[in-house]
Amino acid sequence: MIIVMKATAGARDVAAVAERMRALGFTPEVGEAAERVIVSVAAGGGAAPEAELFSALPGVDKIVALQPAYRLVSRAAHPHDTVIRAGDALIGGRNLAFMAGPCSVENRAQTLEVAEYLAALGVKILRGGAFKPRTSPYSFQGLHETGLEILAEVRERTGMAIITEVLSPQDVPLVAEHADILQIGTRNMQNFTLLEAAGRQPRPVLLKRGMSATIEEWLLAAEYIVSHGNSQVMLCERGIRSFDKSTRAVFDVGAIPLLKHLTHLPVIADPSHATGRWDLVEPVAKAAVAAGADGLIVEVHAHPDQALSDGVQSLRPDRAADLLASLRRLTAALDRGLDLAPAALAA
Amino acid sequence: MIIVMKATAGARDVAAVAERMRALGFTPEVGEAAERVIVSVAAGGGAAPEAELFSALPGVDKIVALQPAYRLVSRAAHPHDTVIRAGDALIGGRNLAFMAGPCSVENRAQTLEVAEYLAALGVKILRGGAFKPRTSPYSFQGLHETGLEILAEVRERTGMAIITEVLSPQDVPLVAEHADILQIGTRNMQNFTLLEAAGRQPRPVLLKRGMSATIEEWLLAAEYIVSHGNSQVMLCERGIRSFDKSTRAVFDVGAIPLLKHLTHLPVIADPSHATGRWDLVEPVAKAAVAAGADGLIVEVHAHPDQALSDGVQSLRPDRAADLLASLRRLTAALDRGLDLAPAALAA
Amino acid sequence: MIIVMKATAGARDVAAVAERMRALGFTPEVGEAAERVIVSVAAGGGAAPEAELFSALPGVDKIVALQPAYRLVSRAAHPHDTVIRAGDALIGGRNLAFMAGPCSVENRAQTLEVAEYLAALGVKILRGGAFKPRTSPYSFQGLHETGLEILAEVRERTGMAIITEVLSPQDVPLVAEHADILQIGTRNMQNFTLLEAAGRQPRPVLLKRGMSATIEEWLLAAEYIVSHGNSQVMLCERGIRSFDKSTRAVFDVGAIPLLKHLTHLPVIADPSHATGRWDLVEPVAKAAVAAGADGLIVEVHAHPDQALSDGVQSLRPDRAADLLASLRRLTAALDRGLDLAPAALAA
Amino acid sequence: MIIVMKATAGARDVAAVAERMRALGFTPEVGEAAERVIVSVAAGGGAAPEAELFSALPGVDKIVALQPAYRLVSRAAHPHDTVIRAGDALIGGRNLAFMAGPCSVENRAQTLEVAEYLAALGVKILRGGAFKPRTSPYSFQGLHETGLEILAEVRERTGMAIITEVLSPQDVPLVAEHADILQIGTRNMQNFTLLEAAGRQPRPVLLKRGMSATIEEWLLAAEYIVSHGNSQVMLCERGIRSFDKSTRAVFDVGAIPLLKHLTHLPVIADPSHATGRWDLVEPVAKAAVAAGADGLIVEVHAHPDQALSDGVQSLRPDRAADLLASLRRLTAALDRGLDLAPAALAA
Repeated sequence: MIIVMKATAGARDVAAVAERMRALGFTPEVGEAAERVIVSVAAGGGAAPEAELFSALPGVDKIVALQPAYRLVSRAAHPHDTVIRAGDALIGGRNLAFMAGPCSVENRAQTLEVAEYLAALGVKILRGGAFKPRTSPYSFQGLHETGLEILAEVRERTGMAIITEVLSPQDVPLVAEHADILQIGTRNMQNFTLLEAAGRQPRPVLLKRGMSATIEEWLLAAEYIVSHGNSQVMLCERGIRSFDKSTRAVFDVGAIPLLKHLTHLPVIADPSHATGRWDLVEPVAKAAVAAGADGLIVEVHAHPDQALSDGVQSLRPDRAADLLASLRRLTAALDRGLDLAPAALAA
Repeated sequence: MIIVMKATAGARDVAAVAERMRALGFTPEVGEAAERVIVSVAAGGGAAPEAELFSALPGVDKIVALQPAYRLVSRAAHPHDTVIRAGDALIGGRNLAFMAGPCSVENRAQTLEVAEYLAALGVKILRGGAFKPRTSPYSFQGLHETGLEILAEVRERTGMAIITEVLSPQDVPLVAEHADILQIGTRNMQNFTLLEAAGRQPRPVLLKRGMSATIEEWLLAAEYIVSHGNSQVMLCERGIRSFDKSTRAVFDVGAIPLLKHLTHLPVIADPSHATGRWDLVEPVAKAAVAAGADGLIVEVHAHPDQALSDGVQSLRPDRAADLLASLRRLTAALDRGLDLAPAALAA
Repeated sequence: MIIVMKATAGARDVAAVAERMRALGFTPEVGEAAERVIVSVAAGGGAAPEAELFSALPGVDKIVALQPAYRLVSRAAHPHDTVIRAGDALIGGRNLAFMAGPCSVENRAQTLEVAEYLAALGVKILRGGAFKPRTSPYSFQGLHETGLEILAEVRERTGMAIITEVLSPQDVPLVAEHADILQIGTRNMQNFTLLEAAGRQPRPVLLKRGMSATIEEWLLAAEYIVSHGNSQVMLCERGIRSFDKSTRAVFDVGAIPLLKHLTHLPVIADPSHATGRWDLVEPVAKAAVAAGADGLIVEVHAHPDQALSDGVQSLRPDRAADLLASLRRLTAALDRGLDLAPAALAA
Repeated sequence: MIIVMKATAGARDVAAVAERMRALGFTPEVGEAAERVIVSVAAGGGAAPEAELFSALPGVDKIVALQPAYRLVSRAAHPHDTVIRAGDALIGGRNLAFMAGPCSVENRAQTLEVAEYLAALGVKILRGGAFKPRTSPYSFQGLHETGLEILAEVRERTGMAIITEVLSPQDVPLVAEHADILQIGTRNMQNFTLLEAAGRQPRPVLLKRGMSATIEEWLLAAEYIVSHGNSQVMLCERGIRSFDKSTRAVFDVGAIPLLKHLTHLPVIADPSHATGRWDLVEPVAKAAVAAGADGLIVEVHAHPDQALSDGVQSLRPDRAADLLASLRRLTAALDRGLDLAPAALAA
């Protein structure tokens, strides 16, 4: 960290900055550059002091952080890609992971129907919400434990791994008992007690980006999970909020290669929530893959017009099959494959 | 609700829309306007069907909601201003409420020092965080239960009411036991299980606006609390996220009079988090009051340069006194007063 | 257009709305839906009245536009894709158009060096700025007419078509004399006198999206050009402004397929300005193509570290060659080709 | 400027940075801080080199600018407030300037009616658009020269100064001939040829903030005007673009005191465009004044429901009178006055 003092800063100001550093256990060096006093500290391999603890000191002008505030999730700390296993699926390796299913678990028959269709396509991971975070208290909130039981039964019958959302620290043990991957949604990206609870259990976690979270805030949210003991975290770009309402959100495709530079964690794309329109899902899914995403999570519903939530952005099963077919060609052109069940790949 | 069908919609599409309405217990009417078929339903005094349940039906073009999705918090439902009591303070009435104190409860002495200073100024409500939501897992996270105990002791000694943040549904009973007002922070505005827990206990709740929450989303978050049983909710504008980093956030001053149209709940302004700079706090505080805010919540620290968090945006006590003096003149020019302890007002 | 009156609107309010419609030459119909009076007008094939002319009338609640305000650029008006020719290049057809070159024309040698390299790769369109819109008045502003003459000479020597920016209506004739395509930059997307001037000359126009322009505003800006007589317009997504500064802008990849639904105009992607980092250019370029872009415009500089502007986002020539190689495989997997000179394609 | 090299930078990288500085006429110093090489240059009283010229050099990690890129408009360059005279009005002094009038000059009678009403209230500056920047090419575009002539006649009859918008460099002489203040609108904030033309003529200029312009970009746009010879520039906050459509824009009230720190130029507030609703104009106008604005510009129309543009955000004349009455009390409480004609103040 390098602190540049104001031109008007006095010796007492400099001394106070240096003393604060020493009080935090660091060894400051005082120098000069561009006619300014600078106070610096080398982090070595460890953590630097927090900028916030210096910004209110008199005479401080600029604070230059030389390391990101996240450590465990940074590529520097762990140069190799993290690969996560969930059921038979691998996420973060050479092949593109593919998760699909309905927005909500509405009932047993609806869930089974779409799951069996997807399993027949070779899809290894089923998504489906039992606890639904809804903007309005009057909207369908999910089947809760009943929904989890339906998902568990579907896993038994299809062999698919299950990803489902958890909304509250109290529910973490219950959801972890039924699911293979815990999803933390966009509205909870900075629900820190939930992040800590997810960090203290062993299931992999898919952490969606907050609607207006910076990349750094997102990585620090992942750092909460990892620093509490769970290194099996994947990041899911699902679109950010913008001034333009012509799509539900703006899919930040540039975040994908940027994250691949910054972190070793797998990066998943959610084109369904990003666009909010089923007819934009395939092009945005392909864009995410071309940009280097490790996986996709896509809403598929057997009867989108009957869906209790997100029908307008859900693919019909036949369109999900078309999407997989075009992803097969696309991944091949990128020297990658699709992580589908072997029988489906042979088809 | 009025649903406008596409020019290409057929009779079967119209029938499906009407049938969905009937299935939800509504009585649709089919008409025509601008060479389009329209299917409408009158909500009467009650709720309209949810737009989302129709948007994926074939042939649907536009859906016009005629009522907001929130009900209990709307001005229409309750024309008179809600007035909330906390200790000796009144929030939402003629006089401007004023809450002040440090970002974090760092220790007993620091908290007492600033509280006693503020109490001497007549301030009736002390803010101070015991559970701190921090972007980085490595930042100071607050004193937790010890912090609550310090706040309770300060209340005993000063007679001030206490507002403090709660981060998790599990902590709601504990925080409600020690505090007079529960604060739900910007990152938790759509932490729905926390909102529900806050709705099931009797303390007033200050609900901060999410960093990128629309006014409607914010009111629906308040609706979660009220619909779970607690009508004592105040809304706190604390700045929204923008493209410009020259201030910490952008204080949406126009939201204040807009909210006064839309809802009966009191509206509080937080100029400290909105600006992130102590030297902008007074002008933005005054702006909020001129725009019609019912109260202010301001960070004040006895020694901002020593603060463990938010020092750079905290007022020194003497500047808080100056702010109160200028607010006294300002409120008088607006035919309002300041909700301070009587002795201070007489001074 | 359908106007829904407030529940409290009276007969006089309705009459005023209807009369305003008649005054504008439309035939209103008055009906009822959801216990509200509605006043509607069918646009037929023509234009609907402007919503703004009704929004201040007493008793008006909601105004529902049934047609977009743009007409000539809409897909409905012209179902087939517009294909634009510039020199030997075709933009908007089956093959991906590729424009490349330096941010600024800095001098003759620099421009020739990169142009000859690119021409040897088969690139048919050279980009290069002679008039530079710079945030600071103290930054390099371009070579102006000298720069145009250099570009014209490069065209002579390489056979490449030239795209270059025009900043002012006065300069349109001069730039149109030297260039094959006029570029209108993001800061000028709503410089309406410039749009009109570009509409009154015959060269194709590449219209960049404003940094915070909605899709509708962008299409209306294109409509300015087309309605003034020039139908040869292509739209260029170059990233939009967001709260996150980790990339220069956010590339709105979902805008590409959305535009392909809404308009017949070709859609170009600029991954250089969107990301601001050369190492993100290739993945975002590929993403744009996978999402359906008709072409790319990419900054390439023979010596990026010497560039007077945008060096950090410019590709080195060898990396441009690598990009073309991977685009060749990618377009093939999408059943498309690359619009390169035949010799290069044969290589 | 301080350039911090990467930990991996070599001696050749450092030498290249230093040499680039020397080539630009600066004297670099090479030092060390936090185990990094730093290359710095003191700007003295003058300009520092541009960061962009170094960012693409190998081994460069961070570049710390110690001066803003704007100079002439900075408070440091000119500590006293700039005060601008237009007709009888003073802008930037102790008293609040007040500009009012219709969005567009629609015809002679409409303009005279509202102008005479406002003049009777003591308003010294009339706003009214003759050249209208409209999102759609099919909307009313203003009366152009005829509109200017109407405004000139109104000045003759009322003694009011005129502010009106100019859209194109070609029109600057014509508009400057008829108007007392030239307005440059939000869409043209970075229309640099227009800024330069406005800088080369003698009338004061009101420069609106771009819809998504940062404070620094805005000040650099003002710097264009001032550096081309015209120091009579005022800045107008008119709301910025956000994700929330419940108001037309978000009025960035914190920008007002921030600008008063950074620049000596007067700061004007436009609550009409910021809110887009007449019933929010008064509270936001008062907020702007409480935050320290030097003036207001407000849309007033004799018959808002008949307006050809912006009717919904225009005040009726009686409401403008009410606004002035409440501003009189508000400014008094802030130890300021209202810059109205003396007769009106005596009333």
